[in-house]
Amino acid sequence: MYRTHTCGELRINDVGQEVTLSGWIQAIRNLGGMTFITLRDRYGLTQLVFDENTSDELISRVANLGREYVIKVTGKVIERSSKNAKMPTGEIEIIASELFVLNKSDIPPFTIEDETDGGDELRMKYRYLDLRRNPVRENLELRHKMGQEIRKFLDGERFMEIETPYLIKSTPEGARDFIVPSRMNPGEFYALPQSPQTFKQLLMISGFDKYFQIVKCFRDEDLRADRQPEFTQIDCEMSFVDQEDVLNTFEGLAKHLFYEIKGLTFNEKFPQILYDDAMKYYGSDKPDLRFDMKFSELTEIAQGKGFKVFDSVEYIGGINAKKCAEYSRKKLDELTAFVQKPQVGAKGLVYVKYNLDGTFKSSVDKFFSAEDLKNWADHMNAEPGDLLLVLAGNRNDTLSALNDLRLEMGERLGLRDKNKFAPCWVVDFPLLEWNEEENRYFAKHHPFTSPKEEDINLFDSDPGKMRANAYDFVINGVEIGGGSIRIFKTELQQKMFEILGIPKKEAEEKFGFLLNAFKYGAPPHGGIAFGFDRWCSVFGGSESIRDYIAFPKNNSGRDVMIDSPSDVGEKQLNELLLKVMKK
Amino acid sequence: MYRTHTCGELRINDVGQEVTLSGWIQAIRNLGGMTFITLRDRYGLTQLVFDENTSDELISRVANLGREYVIKVTGKVIERSSKNAKMPTGEIEIIASELFVLNKSDIPPFTIEDETDGGDELRMKYRYLDLRRNPVRENLELRHKMGQEIRKFLDGERFMEIETPYLIKSTPEGARDFIVPSRMNPGEFYALPQSPQTFKQLLMISGFDKYFQIVKCFRDEDLRADRQPEFTQIDCEMSFVDQEDVLNTFEGLAKHLFYEIKGLTFNEKFPQILYDDAMKYYGSDKPDLRFDMKFSELTEIAQGKGFKVFDSVEYIGGINAKKCAEYSRKKLDELTAFVQKPQVGAKGLVYVKYNLDGTFKSSVDKFFSAEDLKNWADHMNAEPGDLLLVLAGNRNDTLSALNDLRLEMGERLGLRDKNKFAPCWVVDFPLLEWNEEENRYFAKHHPFTSPKEEDINLFDSDPGKMRANAYDFVINGVEIGGGSIRIFKTELQQKMFEILGIPKKEAEEKFGFLLNAFKYGAPPHGGIAFGFDRWCSVFGGSESIRDYIAFPKNNSGRDVMIDSPSDVGEKQLNELLLKVMKK
Repeated sequence: MYRTHTCGELRINDVGQEVTLSGWIQAIRNLGGMTFITLRDRYGLTQLVFDENTSDELISRVANLGREYVIKVTGKVIERSSKNAKMPTGEIEIIASELFVLNKSDIPPFTIEDETDGGDELRMKYRYLDLRRNPVRENLELRHKMGQEIRKFLDGERFMEIETPYLIKSTPEGARDFIVPSRMNPGEFYALPQSPQTFKQLLMISGFDKYFQIVKCFRDEDLRADRQPEFTQIDCEMSFVDQEDVLNTFEGLAKHLFYEIKGLTFNEKFPQILYDDAMKYYGSDKPDLRFDMKFSELTEIAQGKGFKVFDSVEYIGGINAKKCAEYSRKKLDELTAFVQKPQVGAKGLVYVKYNLDGTFKSSVDKFFSAEDLKNWADHMNAEPGDLLLVLAGNRNDTLSALNDLRLEMGERLGLRDKNKFAPCWVVDFPLLEWNEEENRYFAKHHPFTSPKEEDINLFDSDPGKMRANAYDFVINGVEIGGGSIRIFKTELQQKMFEILGIPKKEAEEKFGFLLNAFKYGAPPHGGIAFGFDRWCSVFGGSESIRDYIAFPKNNSGRDVMIDSPSDVGEKQLNELLLKVMKK
Repeated sequence: MYRTHTCGELRINDVGQEVTLSGWIQAIRNLGGMTFITLRDRYGLTQLVFDENTSDELISRVANLGREYVIKVTGKVIERSSKNAKMPTGEIEIIASELFVLNKSDIPPFTIEDETDGGDELRMKYRYLDLRRNPVRENLELRHKMGQEIRKFLDGERFMEIETPYLIKSTPEGARDFIVPSRMNPGEFYALPQSPQTFKQLLMISGFDKYFQIVKCFRDEDLRADRQPEFTQIDCEMSFVDQEDVLNTFEGLAKHLFYEIKGLTFNEKFPQILYDDAMKYYGSDKPDLRFDMKFSELTEIAQGKGFKVFDSVEYIGGINAKKCAEYSRKKLDELTAFVQKPQVGAKGLVYVKYNLDGTFKSSVDKFFSAEDLKNWADHMNAEPGDLLLVLAGNRNDTLSALNDLRLEMGERLGLRDKNKFAPCWVVDFPLLEWNEEENRYFAKHHPFTSPKEEDINLFDSDPGKMRANAYDFVINGVEIGGGSIRIFKTELQQKMFEILGIPKKEAEEKFGFLLNAFKYGAPPHGGIAFGFDRWCSVFGGSESIRDYIAFPKNNSGRDVMIDSPSDVGEKQLNELLLKVMKK
């Protein structure tokens, strides 16, 4: 038997007990006559003591121990003379009478502490050691708890968890698929799912009514920072529902998680923001609502005053930075530099200080009178003491730059507290998105998304104007999930494929089974998929999903710990009738 | 709004309510003035009535309905005059006042009934329609419930569910891997996991203490009946445990499931059978313990009586078929034919009838006296009225044939009731298995399995004799899971790779990360993996795992519904630097 207790559970009322613990040596302190060892396992830390009464043989064994050695210790629980209130077991310690080394340890390549000296790459290579550190372990504990609570809630709502296959079929729309050669069907390939979309729709056609799955999905994309080739979705679908039913159900899930995981109660309904409004007021379809600072459009009132930069543009708009009128020259220069960064892309920044004494000081005093600026200020709900930051240019780029500026100001003003949570729905997305390069429409959400009933008549006249029954769930400016009410009739689905430029033959080849299934009584249905990694990271207060994945891949899709991908032998390739070509 | 209630929930005390239901038309009966429709959804059936008071317009709409149409109906709940006690909603029906066709349906290719007229292949092609049938849906409901209960139990035991990666590295031992070409690392490949074995061991090294995952695994094997290229494991691992700890924990899981799913309580510990005994008494490492009928070896007492067939063989053994002494000639011929089938492979069958009057009648009366046969009978604990069935040949083949015969007799005697459950552990498996063809040892379980402490000294002298800390969990003769205590020290693991003939360089390439991880304080650990599909099928009383998988593949690894695997375009292959060779 390796242990009677874990390293996290002994308390003052266990004093006197003979116990056995196993774990890792976190620290050894030799204070002359006394040696203290801090023993660690997943559940906590316990202090072991070896004192003048310890046998010489044991003392000599202790002398040979090192950090991260795995030991088994037996001894008596005693009350500590100097208690440690920060440690749950801090009122007791173990006077050791026996000790076995279960396994030795080389000196780890970095320290196994909350703050480690290991760099990113080293920690990825030795991920199994990085996972020993408290903050990393706690991330996975959060993830485990989230997973259990998600299942508990959805099971309670009578959702059935149904596993869909991983070896499926390559699909044309969306990102690139990972493919898997079939040995039994040489020259043919499976594809790994980018999502179980078509399968969950089939399950609705099968009458399962409410489905969910926490499931791995795969995208062979050029990895940007914080993208992973494999990621986890909470995938859900319901029948006989309209958009509001879906939002209600999953608002319930979100509230359950907020309560169970973060201890937060939301009494009100989450705000629902129209996509058009999100773009207009926040320049983003995932607005961070932890703070207000909505955009005000100034195009009309700021043009025609002789300021050429403004007069020639499509859009002028700004944000009101409350109580920032006393910003220094230096700070304003920083902000100007910020908006001019290539990623933000604005030409310049106009500022207007609405001074506490009611006067104005702006970078465009040459062109605008105090009255003009008062007019802006009123339009932007500004009060004396506020700072107005204004950008101009073509509409879309300027809205986007203004979004960056708003988030930057939120950051600078401490308005983006990671312990504060502002969830919202963004609804009424456009159905289609025009792609200039390919000169065709793409599905904004995916090709199975239903247009709004009242917009279907625009299919032939003005498809770009059609709105979808599509929605995103956003927390703190991060898209946590998205979904839609689906098309459930063959003709409409065919029409959709048509407008996306998917030839009938290809649609038949790739989605024939779905179009066919629609013929046998498909019910109205819709659903949503949440990014599980992302949701964990937002709840955990981190910007990186990688911190919430046990064994993540790096930006080249490589697992540096196991060194994969790697070569496979000729033999295996021959069995698959495959040849790797020279670069 | 599509519904106020489901089709399974209205009862007598809902009478008088105005309700709206949505669902599929299961049946339409037109009885002159009255039309009855049975409406179906996942939750049940409800009867709709259209009578003489129904508007003409509605009646004409009803006339155009067909089976599997999806409709929405509003009406009033009334008490039925002729109640149907078999139907949970059988006391009420709905007098319909409104009806909308949500979707039409073509005539399904087979009937959506508990007993369908559709053949296997047709039902696989239209799996989404087959899934509408009660028995199929119930299988997946069982699976869902199993999954939730497994998680509930393991979470309660402080196991953490941790997702391990799907894009990993090809490994040499075991079955063939599915591989996944990497576009970002051209010419290199990921492999899909056959199991998360090495990752769960790394998690133990990381200190996670108790891990589980319900996870898809992949094996590119030539599919035998009832094998699937992708299947689901309940994968578990624990630290600081010995074999008995693991068995106790998962016996707890099994008892939890028996209770929650089947309503069965097991008060006793599950039997633990030594591998050697399982082979000796049942000729199988997965004995069906629903019935006794153990083998008795007769080699010593049946040889030397002049019966050449017996005298020249390695092994003679038999089973006692209780109360079968009156078996007819025909039945005995059938049994002889059975054991002579190539899959069973016995040369012939010797029978001994121990008649109720105490006399004997056997197929070897020429060679054996009544006294001899009485001796056999005593040896086999036979009583008057019993039938002894005896096989002879080389030991292993005969034990195996005797196992087939025992199961056949169990079947014939109705001793293999699928509603009776006899779980057991089989323990102390051999560590290694000699492969004649390749002239080397293979790991009986897998290369990470620890030998028994007391057998380690056999490594150099007689490795084939070493027993492993390995165990299988068996229910009703079906292997539900298997696991082992693992090697956790580099030297022993290297020794194991050596004896398996894995060259040091290859071991380093494939498992370097694990051997390396062992150096940093690996704890003693062990675990188990259960076949989730298989466990569901045993609990469901079916022999086929396919019935418990939503979208299974056929015996050529093909999904005939979506028609996968399939060709992928040249473009995608070029991006992967791959070429498909001609056959």
